[in-house]
Amino acid sequence: MWKPDRLSKTPIYEQISEHLQLKISQGEYPPGSMLPAERKLAEQLGVNRSTIVQAYAELRSTGMIDSRTGSGTSVSLTKWGANPKQPPDWGSYADSGSFLPNVPFLRKIREMLSVQEELIDFASGELSAELSPSQEITALMQENQFSGYLGYDNPQGYKPLREALVTYLEKYRGIRTSESSILITSGSQQSMFLITKCLLSPGDAVAIEDPSYCYSLPMFQSAGLRLFRLAVDKHGINPEDIRTLYKKHRIKMVFLNPTYHNPTGTVLDDQRRSQLLDITSELGLPIVEDDPFSLTSYDGIAPLPFKSMDRMGSTLYVGSFSKIAASGLRIGWMVAPHTIVERLTDARQQMDFGLSVIPQQVAALFLESERFEPHLERLRMNLRFRRDIMIEALQKELPGLVQFNVPDGGLHLWCKLIPEVNDNKLFESAIKQGAIFVPGSVYGSDSGFVRFTFARPKVNEIGPGIDKFAKALREIVNLSL
Amino acid sequence: MWKPDRLSKTPIYEQISEHLQLKISQGEYPPGSMLPAERKLAEQLGVNRSTIVQAYAELRSTGMIDSRTGSGTSVSLTKWGANPKQPPDWGSYADSGSFLPNVPFLRKIREMLSVQEELIDFASGELSAELSPSQEITALMQENQFSGYLGYDNPQGYKPLREALVTYLEKYRGIRTSESSILITSGSQQSMFLITKCLLSPGDAVAIEDPSYCYSLPMFQSAGLRLFRLAVDKHGINPEDIRTLYKKHRIKMVFLNPTYHNPTGTVLDDQRRSQLLDITSELGLPIVEDDPFSLTSYDGIAPLPFKSMDRMGSTLYVGSFSKIAASGLRIGWMVAPHTIVERLTDARQQMDFGLSVIPQQVAALFLESERFEPHLERLRMNLRFRRDIMIEALQKELPGLVQFNVPDGGLHLWCKLIPEVNDNKLFESAIKQGAIFVPGSVYGSDSGFVRFTFARPKVNEIGPGIDKFAKALREIVNLSL
Repeated sequence: MWKPDRLSKTPIYEQISEHLQLKISQGEYPPGSMLPAERKLAEQLGVNRSTIVQAYAELRSTGMIDSRTGSGTSVSLTKWGANPKQPPDWGSYADSGSFLPNVPFLRKIREMLSVQEELIDFASGELSAELSPSQEITALMQENQFSGYLGYDNPQGYKPLREALVTYLEKYRGIRTSESSILITSGSQQSMFLITKCLLSPGDAVAIEDPSYCYSLPMFQSAGLRLFRLAVDKHGINPEDIRTLYKKHRIKMVFLNPTYHNPTGTVLDDQRRSQLLDITSELGLPIVEDDPFSLTSYDGIAPLPFKSMDRMGSTLYVGSFSKIAASGLRIGWMVAPHTIVERLTDARQQMDFGLSVIPQQVAALFLESERFEPHLERLRMNLRFRRDIMIEALQKELPGLVQFNVPDGGLHLWCKLIPEVNDNKLFESAIKQGAIFVPGSVYGSDSGFVRFTFARPKVNEIGPGIDKFAKALREIVNLSL
Repeated sequence: MWKPDRLSKTPIYEQISEHLQLKISQGEYPPGSMLPAERKLAEQLGVNRSTIVQAYAELRSTGMIDSRTGSGTSVSLTKWGANPKQPPDWGSYADSGSFLPNVPFLRKIREMLSVQEELIDFASGELSAELSPSQEITALMQENQFSGYLGYDNPQGYKPLREALVTYLEKYRGIRTSESSILITSGSQQSMFLITKCLLSPGDAVAIEDPSYCYSLPMFQSAGLRLFRLAVDKHGINPEDIRTLYKKHRIKMVFLNPTYHNPTGTVLDDQRRSQLLDITSELGLPIVEDDPFSLTSYDGIAPLPFKSMDRMGSTLYVGSFSKIAASGLRIGWMVAPHTIVERLTDARQQMDFGLSVIPQQVAALFLESERFEPHLERLRMNLRFRRDIMIEALQKELPGLVQFNVPDGGLHLWCKLIPEVNDNKLFESAIKQGAIFVPGSVYGSDSGFVRFTFARPKVNEIGPGIDKFAKALREIVNLSL
């Protein structure tokens, strides 16, 4: 993002006004469109609001922009002459279509992280640079010739990667499959998107854990689905609830994240797993099994997925590289019956014409290299270490004020706050203190829950970050401990 | 794809039956689902249909599958015991959702190319391996450290790539813009998908060239848009037609590929370009300008895009690496007003969480390297050479039987066949002869048009491929030349 040059002789407000003038002339802000609000722009550029006021005044004096009290600042329409030309009403185009905007908290998180680099990030659900296998991946790229054909790839995904995944799935997840049953996607996100858009119709009812990562995805609402909740206790969901929902609402699909569940970290226990398979196969009900965290298991032993026990082909199994290696590779996969793989391959081709071959080659090399297993071991050790640092910090900073279950895998700690707090106030207050997290309501829970990702900040930021959070919490509940 | 081992002592039909048994047990073909039709499977595996009949008989004798005359072969439901278990009705799930399947001709092309490797490919609209900068890209990957952060990327796209594109767009296309106006997408395909899904609503009317690449994209129908046609003559569309369509149908957007138009190769002339901008800005109508071929201009000089002349911000400009470097990189871009970039960035994040960083880094390096310009020059020279070989072959093999305009850029030759032919018959007959192309009807034209991509086959396949096509054409029109 452009920033004013503080060493320049040109006053900052003038630099800003010139910069905006350029953007207007290049069509980024067409005639009639709104300029950023003064406060927001000041935040983004790291200047005082008064500087922006001055810059806007400068532009207004040239007739290039109009301001009206209460309705913001817009690029002038009349400036462009008396001829009846007009730009498209871009605002109304942006309001069209079936995609709902992202959840406001998540948009705000993205925005704050992009403008305030020093924020301690407990919000982004991914590995920090320290935990990613960057060196391993760089080495693999330099050692190997990428002489493969750079044309459109097989729309189902790069074949050597699907073959490497056959071995991976059997070795780590007890799933026996073949490359023709695998579809490579852009992370789990694209698998979920394809399932909700292509296998379900608006008005269909589906069951989802409560809380669940799925509530943070507007794709369910965008697809017009009716969501019904499966409460999660210490041992996961209660499978009998599925039968009840089926009878009442004819649910058409069940979405589950049974191992190190996001956000709670829960593991669905073995007895419930087999009970669940019995019930869904009795009802002919498909399960979408989202399994991104299993390989993070701190003691190396995660329960086997439904897919490995499923003799009826009821499971769409979704996995990904994002939480165990690098989210920036954008490599995920789905294991599914033939009809479904064929249908989703066809639809995905229409959306983006398939994934880039290069990261798929890199992922295949990494899976088959001797570097993969040591990376996993290091990752598990480090995640456990980070979990413990976070718990220690919480116990020290907020004794008796937070409750949590200690997870055995995954990247997150799910906390219930004892004092009654307003999500929004706590969120704003923590940002002011310098730490950012995801409020539980994003995952469909009531106010007063918090998801901390201990995998994302630098390891030495975890303690100070919890300290900042504690200050924020104390401030708003007005406790004098 | 698995193929039977012809050197094994196990009879081929038995290998096939064992292979299917494995797939059934792994859930690729769940109980109740359909197995491939005998003829199709025989084609895929390269065996006689009688071998498949024998393999299915073997499976039927174990009770694992059921066949019913006229309704195909399905995996047995009863085999799985007397308990009332059932798999999901995957067929009906695959029929749900808002994505229409791909055009049948295109599905057939994909399928034939995957099973018959020796087919001469005039169908895939991309560069052959010879024309791709594979060596350049491999070299760049080996010379440079990919030490970048491998976490989720900026959802608008990798910033150094957007910065490289600012220079590229000014240098090659006369477009002055800034990185904040650019959204990186998975090829043009994803830009078009985002525009149709997020900026338009079902029932909206849009104008499209006739013929057009857009008719091959079910995304327009999937989005529920009403399509109105703008006839293309030797100099492109007639801009006044837009006003007529606007009055009659209140069209909300115009989709154009004005330079080396796909499939016809036409260039919209300069006078019509400025006339078009006048009309659309008078009506406040947005133009989607798809510009993938400009840099292939055989003499190096393509007309400037609308975007470079557009003072009203009416144009959404879409570009891509696919036709000038490597489609397998999956790098495209859109230049758009701020509101639109923001909206589409948010929606794209929901679909796939952004693109992989690695190919974006590669693309940025390539654009800024000294290897880019020589690659372009070589590409242009080679494309012109291939065009000429194809024209020579057509004139030799089918004198007086095909008409075409000679394109000055792009990858395709658009031909009108003089004899009356049935698209479907010609297509099948050409495949039998060993060459494949795209029938014109895929692009919305009447029967009797053909798109040949001269960029895709090996250079020494062009002559023999046209020879095969000529045989196919002669055969079905029963000419005895």
